[in-house]
Amino acid sequence: MAPATVDAFMAPATPLSADNSDVNATPHASRSSSVSSPPYQAVDYSQKIDVNPRKGTRDFPPEDMRLRNWLFQNFREVSQLFGFEEVDYPILESEALYIRKGGEEIRDQIYCFEDRGNRRVALRPELTPSLARLVMQKGQSLSYPIKWYAIGQCWRYENMTRGRRREHYQWNMDIIGVPDVTGEAELISSIVTFFKRIGITAKDVGIKISSRKVLQEVMSLYSVPETSFTKACIIIDKMGKITIEELKKELKSIELSNDAIENLLQVLSIKSFTELEEKLGGTGEAINELKQLFSLAEKFGYSEWIQFDASVVRGLAYYTGIVFEGFDREGKLRAVCGGGRYDRLFSTFGGDDLPACGFGFGDAVIIELLKERRLLPEVPLEIENIVCSLDPDLKGAAARVASVLRGKGRCVDLVLENKPLKWVFKRAARINARRLILVGSAEWEKGMVVVKILSSGEQYQVNVDELE
Amino acid sequence: MAPATVDAFMAPATPLSADNSDVNATPHASRSSSVSSPPYQAVDYSQKIDVNPRKGTRDFPPEDMRLRNWLFQNFREVSQLFGFEEVDYPILESEALYIRKGGEEIRDQIYCFEDRGNRRVALRPELTPSLARLVMQKGQSLSYPIKWYAIGQCWRYENMTRGRRREHYQWNMDIIGVPDVTGEAELISSIVTFFKRIGITAKDVGIKISSRKVLQEVMSLYSVPETSFTKACIIIDKMGKITIEELKKELKSIELSNDAIENLLQVLSIKSFTELEEKLGGTGEAINELKQLFSLAEKFGYSEWIQFDASVVRGLAYYTGIVFEGFDREGKLRAVCGGGRYDRLFSTFGGDDLPACGFGFGDAVIIELLKERRLLPEVPLEIENIVCSLDPDLKGAAARVASVLRGKGRCVDLVLENKPLKWVFKRAARINARRLILVGSAEWEKGMVVVKILSSGEQYQVNVDELE
Repeated sequence: MAPATVDAFMAPATPLSADNSDVNATPHASRSSSVSSPPYQAVDYSQKIDVNPRKGTRDFPPEDMRLRNWLFQNFREVSQLFGFEEVDYPILESEALYIRKGGEEIRDQIYCFEDRGNRRVALRPELTPSLARLVMQKGQSLSYPIKWYAIGQCWRYENMTRGRRREHYQWNMDIIGVPDVTGEAELISSIVTFFKRIGITAKDVGIKISSRKVLQEVMSLYSVPETSFTKACIIIDKMGKITIEELKKELKSIELSNDAIENLLQVLSIKSFTELEEKLGGTGEAINELKQLFSLAEKFGYSEWIQFDASVVRGLAYYTGIVFEGFDREGKLRAVCGGGRYDRLFSTFGGDDLPACGFGFGDAVIIELLKERRLLPEVPLEIENIVCSLDPDLKGAAARVASVLRGKGRCVDLVLENKPLKWVFKRAARINARRLILVGSAEWEKGMVVVKILSSGEQYQVNVDELE
Repeated sequence: MAPATVDAFMAPATPLSADNSDVNATPHASRSSSVSSPPYQAVDYSQKIDVNPRKGTRDFPPEDMRLRNWLFQNFREVSQLFGFEEVDYPILESEALYIRKGGEEIRDQIYCFEDRGNRRVALRPELTPSLARLVMQKGQSLSYPIKWYAIGQCWRYENMTRGRRREHYQWNMDIIGVPDVTGEAELISSIVTFFKRIGITAKDVGIKISSRKVLQEVMSLYSVPETSFTKACIIIDKMGKITIEELKKELKSIELSNDAIENLLQVLSIKSFTELEEKLGGTGEAINELKQLFSLAEKFGYSEWIQFDASVVRGLAYYTGIVFEGFDREGKLRAVCGGGRYDRLFSTFGGDDLPACGFGFGDAVIIELLKERRLLPEVPLEIENIVCSLDPDLKGAAARVASVLRGKGRCVDLVLENKPLKWVFKRAARINARRLILVGSAEWEKGMVVVKILSSGEQYQVNVDELE
C-alpha cells in the first residue's frame, strides 16, 4: 500500500570505522601456512575498497538485525492475529507497473534501470502494484476476500539528505474483495493492535481519517473536471510541506477556480463531523462511510486513537475512498503509516476492478518514535550454552558435547580454538550464556563434563549423555 | 558464501492463469458507489499489463510463502543452535565488489546496472563479498571469532532455460577468525543437522570434501606458476559439465604442461586417503587438515555423511583450503550446497587477511530434492477461529468478539461482509479453522455468542468476555 514512510528512512547512518588498518588485531590468518597455501589472485585492488554500503542503503550487523527481527516479528504476529496470509513479490519489477498519471512524487523517484536485454526495470518503490499484478494473474483460483500481508524492501532514488535513505522495509496489509467499510475498520484495528503491542499508546500516536469522496463532493459543486481530481489530491497531500501560496498556485495550474480553491481549503481545515455535515449536507456517501467507520471503531475499541481530519488525502494516485494516516501526536515525525481504499487500481492495469483497501507501514519512523519515547526494546544476544575444552586434544570431545546438546534443541556456542579460560568467561558474558560447559581430561575419562551456572557460580559434574 | 546452487533456481514456473477476464467473478467493486466515487486516472494502459513476474523472478503467493517460511525457519533454527548471529546486507552493491580475476562464471552473470548517478551497481550475486566489506568496516569493534548467518536473495543474469531462474535465496553461515579446521567441521555439522531436521538422511545426500591445497601440492611438483592456480581451480570445477577433452584444452590454455595435466587428472580421481598419501606423501598440510577434519567428523557424529573426493574444488576464486559440496546420492540434482575456507579474501579488498570459512545453501535444489524424495512438508493455512455475525446490524458486535479473542492472542478471521452460513462454513474449511463463532441477535442480547467446534460439531453458548 501507500509507502507512508517511503520518504523517511531509518535515520542512524552506518558508523564509519575510523581506522581499519588494525582489523586483524585479534585473529590472524595462520601465517605458518602461508607458504604452502594456494596463491590467491590478490591485489585486484591497489587500494582498499569502500567499506561502506552504497549511499542510502543499510547493512544489518547483528545488533541491528535483532531489532529488525523484533519489529518484523511483531508485524507478522499482528497480521496472523487478524487471519492474514503472508505473500511476497519480486524486488525487481517492470518499470511500467509504477508509471501512473497524476504527478505523484514517487514517479520521479523510481529506482529504475535498463537491464542487459534493454528492458526498463525498477526496484519496487511500493508493494501494492505487485499485489494487483499477482491477484490479476491468479484470478479465479483465489478465494475472496483475500487478506494478505507482506514485509518487503522498497526503493526510491532520491537526493540524500540527513535521515533519508534509498531503501526501507514496509509492512503491508491488504483486503481484496470487500467493498464495505468494515475492511478499513479491520485494517485500522490491526494497526492499533500493533501499536499497543510494542508499547505505543493513544497518547503517543493518533490516526487521522478522511475520505477522498469528501473532496470529490466539494469539487463536483464547482464543476471541477474529473480529470483534475487525482492531481488535486496529490497537490493537497503536500500541504504542510509547501506554503499555502505555493499550494494555491499549483491548484490553479490544474485549472481550479479561485472560488473552488478557497472552498477546498476551507473544507480541508474541518476537523469535526458536525462541521462537515453543515458544509456537505448529511446524506452524502462520504459522510455515511465515515460515520460507519467511526461507529465500528467504537465496537473494535479504538475510538480514542482516531480522529476525523479532512486534510488527509495521501500522496498516491490510486486511492478512491477512505484514507488514513498514523501520526506522532508531538508533531515531530512524519507519518508513521498510511493507507486507504483503492477500488479502481485493477482497471488501470487493464483488469476488472475489485474492491480493495490496504495500508503501508515503514520500518523507519516507528523506530524513530520508539527512540523518542524511550520504548526501543533491548534485544540482547542470548546463546544459552558455551562449550569449551580445556585441552587441545579434547576438541573432538567438546564437539561431541555440543552435538549432544544441540540434538536436544539447546543453543551452543562451541569454542573452536584453544583459548585461556579468562577469554572464555569474557565471551560467555558477551553472548549472555547461562551455562558454561567445560570438557577437561580427568572428567572426560569418566564420560563426565563440568557444568557451571554463570549467574550463581554453582558448579557440578554430569554425564555427557545426561546433559539437558 | 559460494552460491552452490546459484545456477539452479526453483524449478516450478509461476502458473499462468489461463483466462483473467473473469477475475472479479466472485466479488464486485460496489457498482452503486461508482457514480459518486472520485474518478480514477484510469486507462493509462490500452491493454492489460503483463501479469507475470519478470522473467526469472518469482512471486510468492500464500502457499509458496508458507513453504519458504518453513524452509527459512529451519535455516534460522539450525543457525541458532550453533550460536550464530543473523546479519543482512544491501541487495544493491557496487559492481566492483564482484569483479575478481580468475575467469569465474559468476562474473559474466552479474546483474549489473548504471544508476542515475552513472555509478556501476549490481544486485548481489552472492553474500560473502558483502560480509567481508562489513567486517572490514566494523574492524576492531567486533568480537572474534565472528559467527554470522544470513538468508538473502541473490541474483544472476543468465539465459533462461528450464528450471533456471535469475534470483534465488541463499542461506550462508560464516566463521571469521578461526584458522583451525574445527571451523569447517562446525559448518559441516550445521549442514548435517539441517538435513536431519527436514527428514533428509545420509542415504539421500552426502558431502564431498577436499582441499585446494591438494591441487596446490600437485601443481608445485610441476612448477606451475602460482598465478595459474586459481584459474586452474575454476576450470577443474567444470569437470562433469564439459568433456575431458575440453577440460584439457582449457588447462593447456593457462600453460599447464601435458604431464602436469595428466597428473592432475589422476589426482582428481582419487577417492581415498590411502591413495592420496601414496601420491602426495603423508606429511603435507593438505592431508593433515583433511585427516583432522575426518577425525572431528567422527566426534560430531556425521562420518557417514562425508567422503573424501579430490575432484571437488568449487567454482569461486577465493577458496584457499578445505572445500566441500553437498550432493544428491542419486546423481539427479546439482550441488545442494557448498563452501570452504577463504583465508585471503580480505586482502583482495585491500584489507588485512582474516582466517575465514563458510558455506552457501540455496533454496532451489533442496526443494527439488524434497520433492524427489516425497519429503516436501504439508504447510497448511491454519487460522484457529472464524467469527461471523448472523445479521448485518451485528457487524460491530462481531468486531468486538474478534477483538476480545485477538486480545487473548487468538488468531481470528473476521467475516467482513454479509454472507450466507454455507459460505462461512466453506471458508472455515479452507482456512482450517477449529472454531466457528456466531454472533446472533438472541444470544447477543444476553452478551453471549455461539461457539461451534468444527471437528466434532459440538456447539455451546459462552459469554463474550469469557471466550478463551
